Amino acid sequence: MATAAETQAMRHAVALAARGLGHTSPNPVVGCVILDADGRVAGEGWHQRAGGPHAEVHALRAAGERARGGTALVTLEPCNHTGRTGPCAQALIAAGIARVRYAVADPTAQARGGAATLAAAGIDVAAGLLAQEAEAVNEPWLTAMRRGRPFVLWKYAATLDGRSAAADGTSRWITSPDSRADVHRLRAEADAVVVGSGTLRADDPHLAVRGRESVTQPLRVVVDSGATVKPGARVLDDAAPTLIAVAEDTSTAHLPRRPGVETVRLPRAAGTGLLIPALLAELHGRGVRSVLLEGGPTLAGAFLAAGAVDKVVGYLAPVLLGAGPAALADAGITTITRALRLETVDVTRLGPDLRVTAVPTVVTTPATPTTPASLAEEN
Amino acid sequence: MATAAETQAMRHAVALAARGLGHTSPNPVVGCVILDADGRVAGEGWHQRAGGPHAEVHALRAAGERARGGTALVTLEPCNHTGRTGPCAQALIAAGIARVRYAVADPTAQARGGAATLAAAGIDVAAGLLAQEAEAVNEPWLTAMRRGRPFVLWKYAATLDGRSAAADGTSRWITSPDSRADVHRLRAEADAVVVGSGTLRADDPHLAVRGRESVTQPLRVVVDSGATVKPGARVLDDAAPTLIAVAEDTSTAHLPRRPGVETVRLPRAAGTGLLIPALLAELHGRGVRSVLLEGGPTLAGAFLAAGAVDKVVGYLAPVLLGAGPAALADAGITTITRALRLETVDVTRLGPDLRVTAVPTVVTTPATPTTPASLAEEN
Ligand SMILES: NC(=O)c1ccc[n+]([C@@H]2O[C@H](COP(=O)([O-])OP(=O)(O)OC[C@H]3O[C@@H](n4cnc5c(N)ncnc54)[C@H](OP(=O)(O)O)[C@@H]3O)[C@@H](O)[C@H]2O)c1
Ligand SMILES: NC(=O)c1ccc[n+]([C@@H]2O[C@H](COP(=O)([O-])OP(=O)(O)OC[C@H]3O[C@@H](n4cnc5c(N)ncnc54)[C@H](OP(=O)(O)O)[C@@H]3O)[C@@H](O)[C@H]2O)c1
Repeated sequence: MATAAETQAMRHAVALAARGLGHTSPNPVVGCVILDADGRVAGEGWHQRAGGPHAEVHALRAAGERARGGTALVTLEPCNHTGRTGPCAQALIAAGIARVRYAVADPTAQARGGAATLAAAGIDVAAGLLAQEAEAVNEPWLTAMRRGRPFVLWKYAATLDGRSAAADGTSRWITSPDSRADVHRLRAEADAVVVGSGTLRADDPHLAVRGRESVTQPLRVVVDSGATVKPGARVLDDAAPTLIAVAEDTSTAHLPRRPGVETVRLPRAAGTGLLIPALLAELHGRGVRSVLLEGGPTLAGAFLAAGAVDKVVGYLAPVLLGAGPAALADAGITTITRALRLETVDVTRLGPDLRVTAVPTVVTTPATPTTPASLAEEN
Repeated sequence: MATAAETQAMRHAVALAARGLGHTSPNPVVGCVILDADGRVAGEGWHQRAGGPHAEVHALRAAGERARGGTALVTLEPCNHTGRTGPCAQALIAAGIARVRYAVADPTAQARGGAATLAAAGIDVAAGLLAQEAEAVNEPWLTAMRRGRPFVLWKYAATLDGRSAAADGTSRWITSPDSRADVHRLRAEADAVVVGSGTLRADDPHLAVRGRESVTQPLRVVVDSGATVKPGARVLDDAAPTLIAVAEDTSTAHLPRRPGVETVRLPRAAGTGLLIPALLAELHGRGVRSVLLEGGPTLAGAFLAAGAVDKVVGYLAPVLLGAGPAALADAGITTITRALRLETVDVTRLGPDLRVTAVPTVVTTPATPTTPASLAEEN
């Protein structure tokens, strides 16, 4: 049983964890609050960036001697392995913490076991306090660890009749400034932003985050079998790093060689383009834990057909067109019984638009529950 | 200034008016509450069906002698003309009412002037109390009177990516039982339900109201230039009256002759099908004040292109298809600056689905503000 002070402290720890979103990959976001022996807040901290101290270390430093006999509230099971900053379980033991409450167990092979280590040292340990809130804040990382590939959020913008552009291809602006600002928030929270070559040619998108302070820019990823990206494409500027995924047999001699722009060769899919699982494995290997898939309709269809979309965010503008390209192209579904059914988890009005957030009710890919240890966490 | 008791009574009068929805056409829905000289409720009533007493007459009967010196709260300006039940303005004067508060002015040439008549008789009269609520409950009728054609509500069901069926044409069921029950509510409130010949052929729809008690069945209207409706079509059964709109040059000799099934000949449109304004004029002439347009996508596009949609209700199911027919076909819009922009007035979750209600922000048809007196109201 948790005291009211502990529950309150854990809620704050979840909020602290959220401050790390977009900055910690390949690590999770983690928040920690230390209560002294009298139940008063003695220190707090959060994991701010990969390679920096873990949340527990920040919080213990802030608490100093007041940690002795106190309680640590942590959003994720304290780690058990020696990374750059040493195992947190040992740090908690050394600081004389008497009680640990953590929200969610660490699913990675490398880090798990922290709770057992603490218990073996005589500390009163229990899991599950505010588990749902702590799961939600770490949803991308936890999903990535459980599936063995990055978490994929597909974002699209459409009219009420499902069009992403008018018949002549014009689409500026279907959605409102509020919706567009919200997309920059999603980008800021993602490790990578992915588009297909069709969108690249049609829109020359920039894909970096604008209008937000102190962001870690996401990796911009262009899925472009034929290496058709123009040397002057905006996605190749120095605002953020860029990865161009091309087919194994494609010549890349004509592509600009420039720091921050990289090329990777991937196997072709049976139909159009490159193999989605290979793309995701490549990104996972590079420490990408969350992908914002910005389309277009063809690439989104391929991701959905591959069972590689974990969440959908649709920005629906109160507009009707009656003609023009659809927001989603072929996803391999031909009849209603095979429709991809989702569960709506949130509906928010953004200016005139509706933002609908939904998750597939059935995951069609075989999940790869164990993660190669080499990919698990970088400290 | 209205007293608190008067505002409360008017709110109740609006609720009373709503009870008439679906039963009063070609008349409006109207509610009335009479307060006695001490401000206590003395009587109430609503217009229950065309040809029956007006709301004021019901309320005055209920109040009896207590109406003398009292106040009448009416959702619509009391009528001034002698219909089957006599002008309400005269009835209020005869009952000794001292004060009248009505919400919305009567826009029809025939009925207006009631307020002036009351004032001339020395009654304290004012308009505007809860005007917005009273406008809303009478929206179809008021719109019909102002535009000189029936109010048109276009209803559609679609996936989040705007499809109304899968690639092979299957569509049962995209939306949930909650949404389908809600459509029956819309039908019950409408005077006519309209579909095109494509939907008729594809779905053999019934179009009558099911699962609701004491409804006035709407007129089922099939827009079918070539009179292709099959003799055994469900829409031709005796559950509700049916109107088949065909082209002027179409032979109808093969259509079943049966009570409750009528045929009307209308001019052809320049492109596909029949002239929408001619169809609406025909319905208006038959006393239809509100139309539920149930599609399909082609006919809905034609209505939108004609500026003949006053409100849109979209039932969006949390489903993705990536292929299949769009919920809306050609509405004459080719570029984004000509997109039909709407204002969302309501978003409601119905089971798993979202119901989005929106109104066009610009009306593109020239409105016909005056109504031929012959069509204005039937008493
Ligand atoms: N409404 C929205 O939210 C939104 C978002 C983005 C884009 N758009 C619009 O979408 C339009 C572009 O649509 P699009 O469908 O042509 O673009 P797309 O989906 O961005 O690109 C499709 C291309 O991606 C490449 N690709 C690589 N791997 C693939 C795979 N496994 N499966 C499928 N494709 C793969 C293929 O080209 P290669 O063979 O060359 O690799 C394919 O032709 C633009 O008009 C843009 O404005 C709308
Ligand atoms: N998702 C939904 O909410 C919904 C609702 C209804 C239907 N549907 C689906 O829609 C499909 C049928 O689509 P559809 O587009 O072929 O059917 P539709 O819109 O019901 O019918 C189109 C036909 O209506 C006639 N029409 C008469 N006047 C017209 C005018 N002014 N403009 C255009 N058409 C006029 C034309 O045929 P004539 O030349 O013969 O008169 C035209 O071909 C079915 O699969 C059905 O299941 C979906």
